[in-house]
Amino acid sequence: MKLLRVGTAGAERPALLDNDGALRDLAGLVTDIDGDLLADEAALTRIREAAAAGTLPVLAAEGSRIGAPLGRIGKVVCIGLNYHDHARETGAAIPEEPIVFFKAADTVVGPDDTVLVPRKSEKTDWEVELAVVIGRTARYLDTAEEGLAHVAGYAVANDVSEREFQIERGGTWDKGKNCETFNPLGPWLVTADEVPDPQALSLKLWVNGELKQNGTTAEQIFPVGEVVRYVSQFMTLYPGDVINTGTPAGVAMGQPEPKPYLRAGDVVELEIEGLGRQRQELADA
Amino acid sequence: MKLLRVGTAGAERPALLDNDGALRDLAGLVTDIDGDLLADEAALTRIREAAAAGTLPVLAAEGSRIGAPLGRIGKVVCIGLNYHDHARETGAAIPEEPIVFFKAADTVVGPDDTVLVPRKSEKTDWEVELAVVIGRTARYLDTAEEGLAHVAGYAVANDVSEREFQIERGGTWDKGKNCETFNPLGPWLVTADEVPDPQALSLKLWVNGELKQNGTTAEQIFPVGEVVRYVSQFMTLYPGDVINTGTPAGVAMGQPEPKPYLRAGDVVELEIEGLGRQRQELADA
Repeated sequence: MKLLRVGTAGAERPALLDNDGALRDLAGLVTDIDGDLLADEAALTRIREAAAAGTLPVLAAEGSRIGAPLGRIGKVVCIGLNYHDHARETGAAIPEEPIVFFKAADTVVGPDDTVLVPRKSEKTDWEVELAVVIGRTARYLDTAEEGLAHVAGYAVANDVSEREFQIERGGTWDKGKNCETFNPLGPWLVTADEVPDPQALSLKLWVNGELKQNGTTAEQIFPVGEVVRYVSQFMTLYPGDVINTGTPAGVAMGQPEPKPYLRAGDVVELEIEGLGRQRQELADA
Repeated sequence: MKLLRVGTAGAERPALLDNDGALRDLAGLVTDIDGDLLADEAALTRIREAAAAGTLPVLAAEGSRIGAPLGRIGKVVCIGLNYHDHARETGAAIPEEPIVFFKAADTVVGPDDTVLVPRKSEKTDWEVELAVVIGRTARYLDTAEEGLAHVAGYAVANDVSEREFQIERGGTWDKGKNCETFNPLGPWLVTADEVPDPQALSLKLWVNGELKQNGTTAEQIFPVGEVVRYVSQFMTLYPGDVINTGTPAGVAMGQPEPKPYLRAGDVVELEIEGLGRQRQELADA
Protein backbone atom coordinates (compact mmCIF):
# COMPACT_ATOMS: atom_id res chain seq x y z
CA MET A 1 0.00 0.00 0.00
CA LYS A 2 1.00 3.61 -0.54
CA LEU A 3 0.04 5.52 2.59
CA LEU A 4 0.21 9.30 2.76
CA ARG A 5 -0.98 12.35 4.69
CA VAL A 6 -2.69 15.25 2.93
CA GLY A 7 -3.45 18.74 4.19
CA THR A 8 -1.92 21.70 5.94
CA ALA A 9 1.12 21.14 8.16
CA GLY A 10 0.10 19.76 11.54
CA ALA A 11 -3.43 18.93 10.35
CA GLU A 12 -2.80 16.26 7.73
CA ARG A 13 -5.45 13.67 6.91
CA PRO A 14 -4.50 10.00 6.47
CA ALA A 15 -4.97 8.74 2.92
CA LEU A 16 -4.15 5.93 0.53
CA LEU A 17 -3.04 6.15 -3.06
CA ASP A 18 -4.96 3.38 -4.80
CA ASN A 19 -3.81 1.26 -7.73
CA ASP A 20 -5.54 3.63 -10.16
CA GLY A 21 -3.64 6.61 -8.78
CA ALA A 22 -6.64 8.04 -6.93
CA LEU A 23 -6.51 9.34 -3.37
CA ARG A 24 -8.74 7.51 -0.89
CA ASP A 25 -9.68 8.88 2.51
CA LEU A 26 -8.55 6.82 5.53
CA ALA A 27 -9.91 9.18 8.20
CA GLY A 28 -12.89 6.90 8.74
CA LEU A 29 -10.59 3.98 9.56
CA VAL A 30 -7.55 5.45 11.35
CA THR A 31 -6.66 8.68 13.10
CA ASP A 32 -3.22 9.04 11.55
CA ILE A 33 -0.38 7.25 9.78
CA ASP A 34 1.99 6.77 12.69
CA GLY A 35 3.89 4.22 14.72
CA ASP A 36 0.75 3.02 16.48
CA LEU A 37 -0.86 2.20 13.13
CA LEU A 38 2.25 0.53 11.74
CA ALA A 39 2.46 -1.72 14.81
CA ASP A 40 -1.21 -2.66 14.47
CA GLU A 41 -1.51 -5.53 11.99
CA ALA A 42 -5.29 -5.66 12.38
CA ALA A 43 -5.69 -1.99 11.46
CA LEU A 44 -3.40 -2.38 8.45
CA THR A 45 -5.45 -5.39 7.36
CA ARG A 46 -8.66 -3.37 7.63
CA ILE A 47 -7.17 -0.73 5.33
CA ARG A 48 -5.95 -3.39 2.90
CA GLU A 49 -9.35 -5.08 2.79
CA ALA A 50 -11.26 -1.82 2.39
CA ALA A 51 -8.91 -0.82 -0.44
CA ALA A 52 -9.41 -4.17 -2.18
CA ALA A 53 -13.18 -3.96 -1.76
CA GLY A 54 -13.21 -0.44 -3.20
CA THR A 55 -15.17 0.90 -0.23
CA LEU A 56 -12.81 3.73 0.74
CA PRO A 57 -14.23 7.16 -0.13
CA VAL A 58 -12.39 9.18 -2.76
CA LEU A 59 -10.51 12.09 -1.20
CA ALA A 60 -11.01 15.27 -3.17
CA ALA A 61 -7.63 16.84 -2.55
CA GLU A 62 -6.84 18.58 -5.82
CA GLY A 63 -4.07 21.07 -5.15
CA SER A 64 -3.69 20.07 -1.51
CA ARG A 65 -0.33 19.94 0.19
CA ILE A 66 1.16 16.51 0.77
CA GLY A 67 2.69 16.18 4.21
CA ALA A 68 5.29 13.76 5.45
CA PRO A 69 3.68 10.29 5.29
CA LEU A 70 4.27 9.65 8.98
CA GLY A 71 3.11 11.57 12.03
CA ARG A 72 4.50 11.59 15.58
CA ILE A 73 7.91 10.40 14.46
CA GLY A 74 10.01 9.31 17.42
CA LYS A 75 13.55 9.63 16.16
CA VAL A 76 15.36 9.82 12.86
CA VAL A 77 18.54 7.76 12.89
CA CYS A 78 20.89 8.38 9.97
CA ILE A 79 23.61 6.21 8.49
CA GLY A 80 26.64 8.05 7.11
CA LEU A 81 28.85 7.03 4.18
CA ASN A 82 26.78 3.93 3.41
CA TYR A 83 27.37 3.84 -0.35
CA HIS A 84 30.65 2.70 -1.87
CA ASP A 85 30.50 5.45 -4.52
CA HIS A 86 29.69 8.23 -2.00
CA ALA A 87 32.50 7.15 0.35
CA ARG A 88 34.89 7.35 -2.60
CA GLU A 89 33.74 10.83 -3.67
CA THR A 90 34.20 12.25 -0.16
CA GLY A 91 37.65 10.71 0.10
CA ALA A 92 36.60 8.79 3.21
CA ALA A 93 37.62 5.23 3.96
CA ILE A 94 34.93 2.55 3.66
CA PRO A 95 33.51 2.36 7.21
CA GLU A 96 34.11 -0.91 9.04
CA GLU A 97 30.75 -0.56 10.72
CA PRO A 98 27.85 1.80 10.12
CA ILE A 99 28.33 5.46 11.05
CA VAL A 100 25.33 6.66 13.04
CA PHE A 101 24.08 10.20 13.57
CA PHE A 102 20.75 11.84 14.29
CA LYS A 103 18.19 14.18 12.87
CA ALA A 104 15.51 15.50 15.19
CA ALA A 105 11.98 14.52 14.18
CA ASP A 106 11.10 18.23 14.00
CA THR A 107 13.27 18.58 10.88
CA VAL A 108 10.83 16.41 8.92
CA VAL A 109 8.63 18.26 6.42
CA GLY A 110 6.49 17.28 3.45
CA PRO A 111 8.08 16.10 0.19
CA ASP A 112 7.35 19.34 -1.65
CA ASP A 113 7.69 21.83 1.19
CA THR A 114 10.14 24.70 0.99
CA VAL A 115 13.63 23.92 2.29
CA LEU A 116 15.30 26.77 4.13
CA VAL A 117 18.97 27.60 3.60
CA PRO A 118 20.16 28.38 7.14
CA ARG A 119 21.40 31.87 7.93
CA LYS A 120 25.15 32.19 7.32
CA SER A 121 25.12 28.94 5.35
CA GLU A 122 27.50 28.68 2.42
CA LYS A 123 27.39 24.90 2.04
CA THR A 124 23.84 23.58 2.02
CA ASP A 125 23.88 20.23 0.25
CA TRP A 126 21.43 17.56 -0.92
CA GLU A 127 21.31 13.80 -0.25
CA VAL A 128 18.69 11.49 -1.75
CA GLU A 129 18.14 8.59 0.65
CA LEU A 130 16.05 5.50 1.13
CA ALA A 131 14.18 6.08 4.41
CA VAL A 132 13.18 2.99 6.36
CA VAL A 133 10.18 3.19 8.70
CA ILE A 134 10.18 0.85 11.70
CA GLY A 135 7.01 -1.15 12.37
CA ARG A 136 7.94 -3.29 15.37
CA THR A 137 10.10 -2.59 18.40
CA ALA A 138 13.65 -3.64 17.50
CA ARG A 139 16.08 -4.39 20.34
CA TYR A 140 19.27 -6.44 20.13
CA LEU A 141 18.25 -8.23 16.95
CA ASP A 142 20.43 -11.18 15.93
CA THR A 143 20.25 -11.21 12.15
CA ALA A 144 19.76 -8.99 9.12
CA GLU A 145 16.68 -11.07 8.27
CA GLU A 146 15.17 -10.10 11.61
CA GLY A 147 16.14 -6.51 10.85
CA LEU A 148 14.16 -6.55 7.61
CA ALA A 149 11.19 -8.12 9.39
CA HIS A 150 10.97 -5.04 11.65
CA VAL A 151 10.58 -2.66 8.69
CA ALA A 152 7.03 -1.41 8.06
CA GLY A 153 7.82 0.44 4.88
CA TYR A 154 9.95 2.75 2.83
CA ALA A 155 9.93 6.37 1.68
CA VAL A 156 12.07 8.93 -0.11
CA ALA A 157 14.07 11.29 2.12
CA ASN A 158 16.27 14.25 1.39
CA ASP A 159 18.92 14.28 4.13
CA VAL A 160 19.69 17.97 3.66
CA SER A 161 23.10 18.81 5.13
CA GLU A 162 25.10 21.96 5.84
CA ARG A 163 28.68 20.85 5.29
CA GLU A 164 30.42 23.66 7.15
CA PHE A 165 28.16 23.17 10.18
CA GLN A 166 28.60 19.39 9.87
CA ILE A 167 32.36 19.18 9.46
CA GLU A 168 34.12 22.46 10.17
CA ARG A 169 32.45 23.65 13.37
CA GLY A 170 33.73 21.10 15.90
CA GLY A 171 32.06 18.09 17.41
CA THR A 172 29.72 15.70 15.69
CA TRP A 173 27.88 15.85 12.39
CA ASP A 174 24.55 16.63 14.07
CA LYS A 175 25.17 20.40 13.94
CA GLY A 176 24.84 20.38 10.16
CA LYS A 177 21.95 17.96 9.96
CA ASN A 178 19.27 19.48 12.17
CA CYS A 179 18.44 22.85 10.67
CA GLU A 180 14.70 23.43 10.29
CA THR A 181 13.09 21.80 7.18
CA PHE A 182 16.21 19.64 6.63
CA ASN A 183 14.35 16.35 6.19
CA PRO A 184 11.71 16.29 3.43
CA LEU A 185 10.00 12.88 3.61
CA GLY A 186 7.53 11.23 1.24
CA PRO A 187 5.31 11.51 -0.73
CA TRP A 188 4.30 8.01 0.33
CA LEU A 189 5.09 5.39 2.88
CA VAL A 190 5.16 2.28 0.73
CA THR A 191 4.56 -0.82 2.83
CA ALA A 192 7.37 -3.38 2.85
CA ASP A 193 5.30 -6.04 1.05
CA GLU A 194 5.42 -3.84 -2.07
CA VAL A 195 9.22 -3.47 -1.96
CA PRO A 196 10.40 -7.04 -2.52
CA ASP A 197 14.08 -6.10 -2.73
CA PRO A 198 15.15 -2.86 -1.01
CA GLN A 199 18.67 -3.45 -2.35
CA ALA A 200 17.62 -3.03 -5.98
CA LEU A 201 16.14 0.48 -6.07
CA SER A 202 17.41 3.29 -8.27
CA LEU A 203 17.74 6.71 -6.59
CA LYS A 204 17.94 9.95 -8.56
CA LEU A 205 18.27 13.61 -7.63
CA TRP A 206 18.20 16.68 -9.87
CA VAL A 207 19.10 20.29 -9.09
CA ASN A 208 17.47 22.85 -11.37
CA GLY A 209 16.71 20.02 -13.79
CA GLU A 210 20.27 18.69 -13.95
CA LEU A 211 20.79 15.08 -12.82
CA LYS A 212 23.22 15.11 -9.88
CA GLN A 213 22.75 11.76 -8.18
CA ASN A 214 21.99 8.56 -10.05
CA GLY A 215 22.59 5.59 -7.82
CA THR A 216 21.22 2.31 -6.68
CA THR A 217 20.72 0.79 -3.26
CA ALA A 218 22.76 -2.16 -4.57
CA GLU A 219 25.77 0.08 -3.76
CA GLN A 220 24.90 0.19 -0.05
CA ILE A 221 27.78 -0.99 2.10
CA PHE A 222 25.39 -2.10 4.85
CA PRO A 223 22.03 -3.23 3.48
CA VAL A 224 18.75 -2.31 5.14
CA GLY A 225 18.31 -5.44 7.25
CA GLU A 226 21.86 -5.23 8.54
CA VAL A 227 21.46 -1.52 9.33
CA VAL A 228 18.38 -2.25 11.45
CA ARG A 229 20.12 -5.15 13.21
CA TYR A 230 23.22 -3.05 13.85
CA VAL A 231 21.41 0.04 15.15
CA SER A 232 19.32 -2.16 17.47
CA GLN A 233 22.53 -3.13 19.35
CA PHE A 234 22.99 0.50 20.42
CA MET A 235 19.47 1.79 20.85
CA THR A 236 15.92 0.53 20.83
CA LEU A 237 13.99 1.28 17.65
CA TYR A 238 10.27 1.88 18.09
CA PRO A 239 7.37 1.80 15.61
CA GLY A 240 7.36 5.15 13.84
CA ASP A 241 11.12 5.65 14.07
CA VAL A 242 12.85 6.38 10.77
CA ILE A 243 16.29 5.39 9.50
CA ASN A 244 17.82 7.37 6.64
CA THR A 245 20.09 4.74 5.12
CA GLY A 246 22.69 6.94 3.42
CA THR A 247 23.19 8.62 0.07
CA PRO A 248 24.90 7.58 -3.17
CA ALA A 249 27.54 9.65 -4.96
CA GLY A 250 26.80 13.01 -6.51
CA VAL A 251 26.39 15.45 -3.62
CA ALA A 252 27.67 19.02 -3.97
CA MET A 253 30.52 18.35 -1.52
CA GLY A 254 31.89 15.71 -3.91
CA GLN A 255 32.07 18.01 -6.96
CA PRO A 256 35.05 20.05 -8.16
CA GLU A 257 35.39 23.66 -6.96
CA PRO A 258 33.41 25.83 -7.04
CA LYS A 259 31.08 23.29 -5.44
CA PRO A 260 27.47 23.90 -6.45
CA TYR A 261 25.93 24.28 -2.98
CA LEU A 262 22.28 25.22 -2.79
CA ARG A 263 20.99 28.78 -2.82
CA ALA A 264 17.55 30.34 -2.43
CA GLY A 265 15.60 29.80 -5.65
CA ASP A 266 17.21 26.47 -6.50
CA VAL A 267 14.89 23.54 -7.12
CA VAL A 268 15.75 20.02 -5.96
CA GLU A 269 13.86 16.98 -7.25
CA LEU A 270 14.30 13.45 -5.92
CA GLU A 271 12.98 10.09 -6.95
CA ILE A 272 13.34 6.52 -5.78
CA GLU A 273 12.00 3.68 -7.91
CA GLY A 274 8.48 2.83 -6.76
CA LEU A 275 8.54 5.31 -3.87
CA GLY A 276 7.56 8.48 -5.70
CA ARG A 277 9.05 11.89 -6.30
CA GLN A 278 9.78 15.04 -4.29
CA ARG A 279 10.28 18.65 -5.38
CA GLN A 280 11.61 21.37 -3.08
CA GLU A 281 12.30 25.01 -3.73
CA LEU A 282 15.02 26.55 -1.62
CA ALA A 283 14.48 29.81 0.27
CA ASP A 284 16.46 31.79 2.83
CA ALA A 285 15.73 31.11 6.50
CA MET B 1 7.70 26.17 41.18
CA LYS B 2 8.78 22.57 41.33
CA LEU B 3 6.76 20.66 38.73
CA LEU B 4 6.84 16.89 38.51
CA ARG B 5 5.02 13.85 37.15
CA VAL B 6 4.02 10.97 39.40
CA GLY B 7 2.82 7.49 38.49
CA THR B 8 3.59 4.51 36.32
CA ALA B 9 5.66 5.06 33.16
CA GLY B 10 3.52 6.46 30.37
CA ALA B 11 0.64 7.31 32.73
CA GLU B 12 2.19 9.97 34.95
CA ARG B 13 0.02 12.58 36.67
CA PRO B 14 1.12 16.24 36.74
CA ALA B 15 1.95 17.50 40.20
CA LEU B 16 3.58 20.29 42.15
CA LEU B 17 5.90 20.04 45.12
CA ASP B 18 4.74 22.83 47.42
CA ASN B 19 6.86 24.93 49.75
CA ASP B 20 6.09 22.59 52.65
CA GLY B 21 7.37 19.60 50.66
CA ALA B 22 3.89 18.19 50.01
CA LEU B 23 2.73 16.91 46.64
CA ARG B 24 -0.21 18.75 45.10
CA ASP B 25 -2.31 17.40 42.26
CA LEU B 26 -2.32 19.46 39.04
CA ALA B 27 -4.55 17.12 37.03
CA GLY B 28 -7.52 19.44 37.57
CA LEU B 29 -5.64 22.33 35.99
CA VAL B 30 -3.44 20.84 33.25
CA THR B 31 -3.25 17.60 31.30
CA ASP B 32 0.52 17.22 31.54
CA ILE B 33 3.82 18.96 32.18
CA ASP B 34 4.99 19.41 28.60
CA GLY B 35 6.06 21.94 26.02
CA ASP B 36 2.51 23.19 25.50
CA LEU B 37 2.21 24.02 29.19
CA LEU B 38 5.63 25.66 29.40
CA ALA B 39 4.75 27.91 26.45
CA ASP B 40 1.44 28.89 28.06
CA GLU B 41 2.07 31.76 30.47
CA ALA B 42 -1.60 31.92 31.45
CA ALA B 43 -1.68 28.26 32.46
CA LEU B 44 1.53 28.62 34.46
CA THR B 45 0.05 31.65 36.20
CA ARG B 46 -3.07 29.65 37.09
CA ILE B 47 -0.89 27.00 38.72
CA ARG B 48 1.14 29.63 40.54
CA GLU B 49 -1.99 31.36 41.86
CA ALA B 50 -3.65 28.11 42.91
CA ALA B 51 -0.47 27.09 44.72
CA ALA B 52 -0.28 30.44 46.52
CA ALA B 53 -3.97 30.27 47.45
CA GLY B 54 -3.51 26.75 48.82
CA THR B 55 -6.41 25.42 46.75
CA LEU B 56 -4.57 22.58 45.02
CA PRO B 57 -5.62 19.16 46.34
CA VAL B 58 -3.01 17.13 48.14
CA LEU B 59 -1.81 14.19 46.02
CA ALA B 60 -1.62 11.01 48.07
CA ALA B 61 1.31 9.41 46.28
CA GLU B 62 3.18 7.63 49.05
CA GLY B 63 5.54 5.15 47.44
CA SER B 64 4.59 6.15 43.91
CA ARG B 65 7.15 6.25 41.13
CA ILE B 66 8.36 9.67 40.08
CA GLY B 67 8.55 10.00 36.31
CA ALA B 68 10.58 12.40 34.22
CA PRO B 69 9.18 15.87 34.95
CA LEU B 70 8.41 16.51 31.29
CA GLY B 71 6.21 14.62 28.84
CA ARG B 72 6.25 14.58 25.04
CA ILE B 73 9.85 15.74 24.86
CA GLY B 74 10.78 16.82 21.34
CA LYS B 75 14.52 16.45 21.25
CA VAL B 76 17.39 16.24 23.71
CA VAL B 77 20.37 18.28 22.55
CA CYS B 78 23.60 17.62 24.44
CA ILE B 79 26.69 19.75 24.84
CA GLY B 80 30.00 17.89 25.05
CA LEU B 81 33.11 18.88 27.00
CA ASN B 82 31.48 21.99 28.46
CA TYR B 83 33.37 22.08 31.76
CA HIS B 84 36.99 23.17 32.01
CA ASP B 85 37.77 20.43 34.53
CA HIS B 86 36.08 17.65 32.48
CA ALA B 87 37.86 18.70 29.28
CA ARG B 88 41.14 18.47 31.19
CA GLU B 89 40.42 15.00 32.59
CA THR B 90 39.58 13.58 29.16
CA GLY B 91 42.73 15.10 27.67
CA ALA B 92 40.64 17.02 25.14
CA ALA B 93 41.38 20.57 24.07
CA ILE B 94 39.01 23.28 25.30
CA PRO B 95 36.42 23.51 22.50
CA GLU B 96 36.38 26.77 20.57
CA GLU B 97 32.63 26.47 20.18
CA PRO B 98 30.11 24.14 21.80
CA ILE B 99 30.19 20.48 20.78
CA VAL B 100 26.67 19.31 19.99
CA PHE B 101 25.28 15.80 19.93
CA PHE B 102 21.90 14.18 20.45
CA LYS B 103 20.00 11.86 22.69
CA ALA B 104 16.64 10.58 21.47
CA ALA B 105 13.70 11.59 23.68
CA ASP B 106 12.92 7.88 24.16
CA THR B 107 16.06 7.51 26.30
CA VAL B 108 14.49 9.69 29.01
CA VAL B 109 13.31 7.86 32.12
CA GLY B 110 12.38 8.87 35.66
CA PRO B 111 15.03 10.02 38.15
CA ASP B 112 14.98 6.77 40.14
CA ASP B 113 14.26 4.29 37.35
CA THR B 114 16.60 1.38 36.68
CA VAL B 115 19.40 2.15 34.23
CA LEU B 116 20.28 -0.72 31.91
CA VAL B 117 23.88 -1.58 31.10
CA PRO B 118 23.73 -2.37 27.36
CA ARG B 119 24.57 -5.86 26.19
CA LYS B 120 28.28 -6.22 25.43
CA SER B 121 28.99 -2.98 27.27
CA GLU B 122 32.26 -2.73 29.15
CA LYS B 123 32.34 1.04 29.55
CA THR B 124 29.03 2.38 30.83
CA ASP B 125 29.72 5.74 32.47
CA TRP B 126 27.88 8.43 34.42
CA GLU B 127 27.59 12.20 33.85
CA VAL B 128 25.69 14.51 36.18
CA GLU B 129 24.36 17.43 34.13
CA LEU B 130 22.25 20.54 34.41
CA ALA B 131 19.33 19.99 32.00
CA VAL B 132 17.73 23.08 30.54
CA VAL B 133 14.10 22.91 29.42
CA ILE B 134 13.04 25.25 26.61
CA GLY B 135 9.86 27.30 27.12
CA ARG B 136 9.70 29.44 23.97
CA THR B 137 10.63 28.71 20.36
CA ALA B 138 14.27 29.74 19.93
CA ARG B 139 15.54 30.45 16.43
CA TYR B 140 18.61 32.48 15.49
CA LEU B 141 18.80 34.28 18.83
CA ASP B 142 21.22 37.21 19.00
CA THR B 143 22.41 37.23 22.59
CA ALA B 144 23.01 34.99 25.59
CA GLU B 145 20.44 37.11 27.48
CA GLU B 146 17.85 36.15 24.88
CA GLY B 147 19.00 32.55 25.27
CA LEU B 148 18.30 32.62 29.00
CA ALA B 149 14.89 34.21 28.39
CA HIS B 150 13.87 31.13 26.37
CA VAL B 151 14.52 28.75 29.27
CA ALA B 152 11.43 27.55 31.13
CA GLY B 153 13.28 25.69 33.84
CA TYR B 154 15.97 23.34 34.98
CA ALA B 155 16.32 19.73 36.08
CA VAL B 156 18.94 17.15 37.00
CA ALA B 157 19.99 14.78 34.20
CA ASN B 158 22.29 11.78 34.11
CA ASP B 159 23.78 11.74 30.61
CA VAL B 160 24.63 8.03 30.78
CA SER B 161 27.27 7.17 28.19
CA GLU B 162 28.85 4.00 26.83
CA ARG B 163 32.42 5.09 26.05
CA GLU B 164 33.35 2.26 23.69
CA PHE B 165 30.17 2.77 21.67
CA GLN B 166 30.72 6.56 21.80
CA ILE B 167 34.37 6.74 20.84
CA GLU B 168 35.75 3.44 19.54
CA ARG B 169 33.02 2.25 17.15
CA GLY B 170 33.35 4.80 14.34
CA GLY B 171 31.27 7.83 13.53
CA THR B 172 29.74 10.25 15.96
CA TRP B 173 29.20 10.10 19.70
CA ASP B 174 25.48 9.36 19.30
CA LYS B 175 26.07 5.59 19.21
CA GLY B 176 27.12 5.61 22.86
CA LYS B 177 24.49 8.04 24.09
CA ASN B 178 21.19 6.55 22.96
CA CYS B 179 20.91 3.19 24.68
CA GLU B 180 17.55 2.64 26.37
CA THR B 181 17.18 4.29 29.84
CA PHE B 182 20.30 6.41 29.26
CA ASN B 183 18.76 9.73 30.32
CA PRO B 184 17.27 9.80 33.83
CA LEU B 185 15.64 13.23 34.27
CA GLY B 186 14.19 14.91 37.35
CA PRO B 187 12.82 14.63 39.99
CA TRP B 188 11.52 18.13 39.37
CA LEU B 189 11.38 20.75 36.67
CA VAL B 190 12.25 23.87 38.65
CA THR B 191 10.97 26.97 36.89
CA ALA B 192 13.60 29.49 35.87
CA ASP B 193 12.33 32.18 38.28
CA GLU B 194 13.54 29.96 41.15
CA VAL B 195 17.04 29.58 39.71
CA PRO B 196 18.38 33.13 39.80
CA ASP B 197 21.90 32.14 38.68
CA PRO B 198 22.24 28.89 36.72
CA GLN B 199 26.02 29.45 36.72
CA ALA B 200 26.33 29.03 40.48
CA LEU B 201 24.95 25.55 41.11
CA SER B 202 26.89 22.73 42.70
CA LEU B 203 26.57 19.30 41.04
CA LYS B 204 27.42 16.06 42.80
CA LEU B 205 27.36 12.39 41.84
CA TRP B 206 28.06 9.31 43.95
CA VAL B 207 28.60 5.69 42.90
CA ASN B 208 27.87 3.14 45.62
CA GLY B 209 28.04 5.98 48.14
CA GLU B 210 31.43 7.28 47.02
CA LEU B 211 31.56 10.87 45.79
CA LYS B 212 32.78 10.83 42.17
CA GLN B 213 31.76 14.20 40.73
CA ASN B 214 31.75 17.40 42.76
CA GLY B 215 31.54 20.35 40.44
CA THR B 216 29.89 23.68 39.87
CA THR B 217 28.22 25.20 36.84
CA ALA B 218 30.62 28.12 37.34
CA GLU B 219 33.11 25.86 35.50
CA GLN B 220 30.98 25.77 32.35
CA ILE B 221 32.93 26.92 29.32
CA PHE B 222 29.73 28.06 27.59
CA PRO B 223 27.08 29.22 30.07
CA VAL B 224 23.42 28.31 29.69
CA GLY B 225 22.28 31.45 27.86
CA GLU B 226 25.14 31.22 25.39
CA VAL B 227 24.45 27.52 24.81
CA VAL B 228 20.82 28.28 23.93
CA ARG B 229 21.85 31.17 21.66
CA TYR B 230 24.50 29.04 19.96
CA VAL B 231 22.33 25.99 19.40
CA SER B 232 19.57 28.21 17.96
CA GLN B 233 21.90 29.15 15.07
CA PHE B 234 21.91 25.52 13.90
CA MET B 235 18.46 24.25 14.75
CA THR B 236 15.16 25.54 16.03
CA LEU B 237 14.49 24.81 19.69
CA TYR B 238 10.85 24.25 20.61
CA PRO B 239 9.02 24.34 23.95
CA GLY B 240 9.61 20.99 25.62
CA ASP B 241 13.04 20.46 24.07
CA VAL B 242 15.82 19.70 26.54
CA ILE B 243 19.50 20.66 26.51
CA ASN B 244 21.92 18.65 28.64
CA THR B 245 24.61 21.26 29.25
CA GLY B 246 27.61 19.03 29.90
CA THR B 247 29.27 17.35 32.86
CA PRO B 248 32.03 18.36 35.28
CA ALA B 249 35.11 16.26 36.02
CA GLY B 250 34.95 12.90 37.74
CA VAL B 251 33.50 10.48 35.19
CA ALA B 252 34.79 6.89 35.07
CA MET B 253 36.58 7.54 31.77
CA GLY B 254 38.72 10.17 33.52
CA GLN B 255 39.96 7.85 36.30
CA PRO B 256 43.16 5.78 36.37
CA GLU B 257 43.01 2.17 35.12
CA PRO B 258 41.18 0.01 35.89
CA LYS B 259 38.46 2.57 35.23
CA PRO B 260 35.43 2.00 37.46
CA TYR B 261 32.77 1.65 34.77
CA LEU B 262 29.27 0.75 35.89
CA ARG B 263 28.04 -2.81 36.36
CA ALA B 264 24.68 -4.32 37.24
CA GLY B 265 24.02 -3.76 40.92
CA ASP B 266 25.85 -0.46 41.16
CA VAL B 267 23.91 2.50 42.57
CA VAL B 268 24.34 6.00 41.18
CA GLU B 269 23.07 9.05 43.04
CA LEU B 270 23.05 12.58 41.63
CA GLU B 271 22.21 15.96 43.07
CA ILE B 272 22.16 19.54 41.85
CA GLU B 273 21.70 22.37 44.31
CA GLY B 274 17.99 23.26 44.47
CA LEU B 275 17.01 20.78 41.76
CA GLY B 276 16.72 17.60 43.81
CA ARG B 277 18.29 14.20 43.87
CA GLN B 278 18.22 11.04 41.73
CA ARG B 279 19.05 7.43 42.58
CA GLN B 280 19.44 4.70 39.97
CA GLU B 281 20.28 1.06 40.32
CA LEU B 282 22.06 -0.51 37.38
CA ALA B 283 20.86 -3.76 35.81
CA ASP B 284 21.77 -5.76 32.72
CA ALA B 285 19.79 -5.06 29.54
